[in-house]
Amino acid sequence: MRIARLKDAAALFAGWGCVALLGMFDASAARAEKPNFVIIMADDLGYGDLACYGHPTIRTPELDRMAAEGMRLTQFYSGAPVCTPSRAALMTGRYPARSGLCGQRRVLFPDSTGGLPDSEITLAEALAPAGYRSICIGKWHLGYQPQYLPPNHGFEHYFGIPYSNDMGAETAGGKLRGWPKTPLIRDLAVVEEDPDQTQLTRRYTEEAVAFLREAATGDRPFLLYLPHTMPHVPIFASEKFKGSSPRGLYGDVITELDWSTGEILRTLRETGLAGRTLVFFTSDNGPWLSQGLGGGSAGLLREGKGSTWEGGVRVPGIAWWPDHVPAGRVSPAIASAMDLFTTCVALAGAPQPADRPIDGLDISPVLLHDEPGPRQTVFFSRDTEVTAVRHGPWKAHFKTQSGYGQPKPDAHEPPLLYHLDRDPSEKIDVAARQPDIVAELTRLATEHAASFQPAPSQLDAPK
Amino acid sequence: MRIARLKDAAALFAGWGCVALLGMFDASAARAEKPNFVIIMADDLGYGDLACYGHPTIRTPELDRMAAEGMRLTQFYSGAPVCTPSRAALMTGRYPARSGLCGQRRVLFPDSTGGLPDSEITLAEALAPAGYRSICIGKWHLGYQPQYLPPNHGFEHYFGIPYSNDMGAETAGGKLRGWPKTPLIRDLAVVEEDPDQTQLTRRYTEEAVAFLREAATGDRPFLLYLPHTMPHVPIFASEKFKGSSPRGLYGDVITELDWSTGEILRTLRETGLAGRTLVFFTSDNGPWLSQGLGGGSAGLLREGKGSTWEGGVRVPGIAWWPDHVPAGRVSPAIASAMDLFTTCVALAGAPQPADRPIDGLDISPVLLHDEPGPRQTVFFSRDTEVTAVRHGPWKAHFKTQSGYGQPKPDAHEPPLLYHLDRDPSEKIDVAARQPDIVAELTRLATEHAASFQPAPSQLDAPK
Repeated sequence: MRIARLKDAAALFAGWGCVALLGMFDASAARAEKPNFVIIMADDLGYGDLACYGHPTIRTPELDRMAAEGMRLTQFYSGAPVCTPSRAALMTGRYPARSGLCGQRRVLFPDSTGGLPDSEITLAEALAPAGYRSICIGKWHLGYQPQYLPPNHGFEHYFGIPYSNDMGAETAGGKLRGWPKTPLIRDLAVVEEDPDQTQLTRRYTEEAVAFLREAATGDRPFLLYLPHTMPHVPIFASEKFKGSSPRGLYGDVITELDWSTGEILRTLRETGLAGRTLVFFTSDNGPWLSQGLGGGSAGLLREGKGSTWEGGVRVPGIAWWPDHVPAGRVSPAIASAMDLFTTCVALAGAPQPADRPIDGLDISPVLLHDEPGPRQTVFFSRDTEVTAVRHGPWKAHFKTQSGYGQPKPDAHEPPLLYHLDRDPSEKIDVAARQPDIVAELTRLATEHAASFQPAPSQLDAPK
Repeated sequence: MRIARLKDAAALFAGWGCVALLGMFDASAARAEKPNFVIIMADDLGYGDLACYGHPTIRTPELDRMAAEGMRLTQFYSGAPVCTPSRAALMTGRYPARSGLCGQRRVLFPDSTGGLPDSEITLAEALAPAGYRSICIGKWHLGYQPQYLPPNHGFEHYFGIPYSNDMGAETAGGKLRGWPKTPLIRDLAVVEEDPDQTQLTRRYTEEAVAFLREAATGDRPFLLYLPHTMPHVPIFASEKFKGSSPRGLYGDVITELDWSTGEILRTLRETGLAGRTLVFFTSDNGPWLSQGLGGGSAGLLREGKGSTWEGGVRVPGIAWWPDHVPAGRVSPAIASAMDLFTTCVALAGAPQPADRPIDGLDISPVLLHDEPGPRQTVFFSRDTEVTAVRHGPWKAHFKTQSGYGQPKPDAHEPPLLYHLDRDPSEKIDVAARQPDIVAELTRLATEHAASFQPAPSQLDAPK
């Protein structure tokens, strides 16, 4: 297959320096066979918040249909339990400690001076040598200053709110934080101060649909990265969806995201792109449980956003690509958002960055053939500290902390140990019965932590 | 439609005495149009134990497909939080306090002398005047003595273990309880003492398939009631399924039940019965959480078997009837196992029992047309005491108790109040903010309790 041959070629010329050569190579007719990528990411959506993941009163017919026509992953992990490091991991295929996009402040704020360093290779930049154009619509949260925004990280266009929607002056709950109003940015310029947040999902969707219609007329493959602002608190739905869900406003918001995803898939079908576009739907981390009914549900998983218990890091993951991703499959393969980087680069036939460690793995055997998949191990961190590790069915916790409200972590010596395949809710600590497994997982975590020096924190950079 | 006219006729002659008249009426050609009913009930299967209800590592492709071809109910309640009263409610369409199938002992044991009174009208008996034949395969648990067994309650045949599979001498965990070995019964006679429990699901399935093949050659509509012995602890799977699930033995057991359900549906398709058979899959109560990994998961719901928190009483409910139950629907309609009685009787065009209160409602508008459904209220009890009530989206708890291990209940004055549509995990008590709702639900529960005198307990009858 042409894509496979391109991939072999990429392996031959794996050095990042051969970008130009590959760019020429890709000017061939092979280009038309390259798949497009659409990555849709909800914000703070929990593992249990979609009907196809078991929520009883949130109706998500479009996402259910997407899963029925594609694959629903049940052990898919976000890159981190909070926004900024999670997005850094997705965009770079690397643990956030490598790029410095983690820290004591946990995420970037409007007074942060840091952002994703220019030295990092984003998915958009990695795909470019294979002829791809990329666009980003939604919440970036990898730096607000112009040098950090998507157009300076390989994206042709950007439209969205650059950080979380509770970080504006108007939504600070009465507290004067000295921050600007939430800006809406197009490319590098603020086009609206304090946009009407009830319209964001609709506007992002219209922007995405317009891009797809335009891209369908061109001959270049593309990446559409659509990280929604919702359902991060404060939550908003447009008039059309307000009051539509028995789950209340949170349900309305998810219903609108469901509609949005349906619009994307419908557009792909209508434009004839469906058969050559991989769409992946996921969330950046678990539900913000301390928000009560304004936050979501992790389903049967323990804890939520901010925590390295499963509820903080395991998220929905739905893959769709007609005639390529087998329909109606439910895969328990372990996978990470970092793998989306590596998989897209591989499917594009672009060279994997070879001058730096990449933590993502190519999970196309999972997505295309429902095979077990290459990933055995995932490390979970708070700031740069590894607090837990999953390896095969096992997960060891060295420190645990609820997402919000627990000031200090509980340290565990020996670590807690859970068999996640059998005990997904992390109820029964079996460390005492499995000292060898505990030792093995401790060794893996120690070796991982010792294998590199975390980059300076972009989050804790001086204000 | 013929069935509707039959139903009108039934209303005209609603007295139970007109059975003979209706029997004659049903000798007409109308009989061929009557739907068959297959009710499959797992034992202690939790709300979160199927892939289509969100379990990450239990694969249930047959039940997932059943749901995709039919309707998945997300607010379906078993008749009670434990075995015996739950089955009594299903079989009679009545709260178990009306039949005496509840008590301080909670379920019937091998030393119990009671059982379902002859005066009760079972679903099999209610369907008989409409020309139905009925068969029961599996765990009956409504009385072990011959007069209580299915053949004396309207079923043509019975094959199964008459009570829970942990109630035999061999499975008493070393404790000498003076009970007989677990018997396997055919009709009214013990045919095996202490049967190999690894073979039960397979044998029940083969028996059910053989019945369906035979029934397909006849001209009478039928009820197949298939209450599985599994996954009640001690759990067993046959060789073919042992070791098949990443969830461990519990997963193997569910996988075998999934296979079994697939065999039933396959047989219905192959024999041409599919288009005139309503199949309903459910569980008798929530998961037995105190069994650790040997028990199941209630998913996002609170608590499990034995408790009137949602995890004890809300169970999977999947309806399948090609060309009648719309495909791929997810319904949040409130419904109860008692409604299966009333709905089947209505669809059969048989008369509803008119000489006694029936608590079931006809949910065919839900099942056939995905309409909201008639049920607003469900009462939940321990023994005969109403401990909680659901009305619309609200649930009030007067007493709460974990399923097992909490010796005394916590009494709540004022009651706890949860908005289940918004807060299915029962996390946020809003009683203080909704005194009118609390008063209304308290009134409903009080009126219900005062509306009838509980029948003498069959469970606490002298040994």
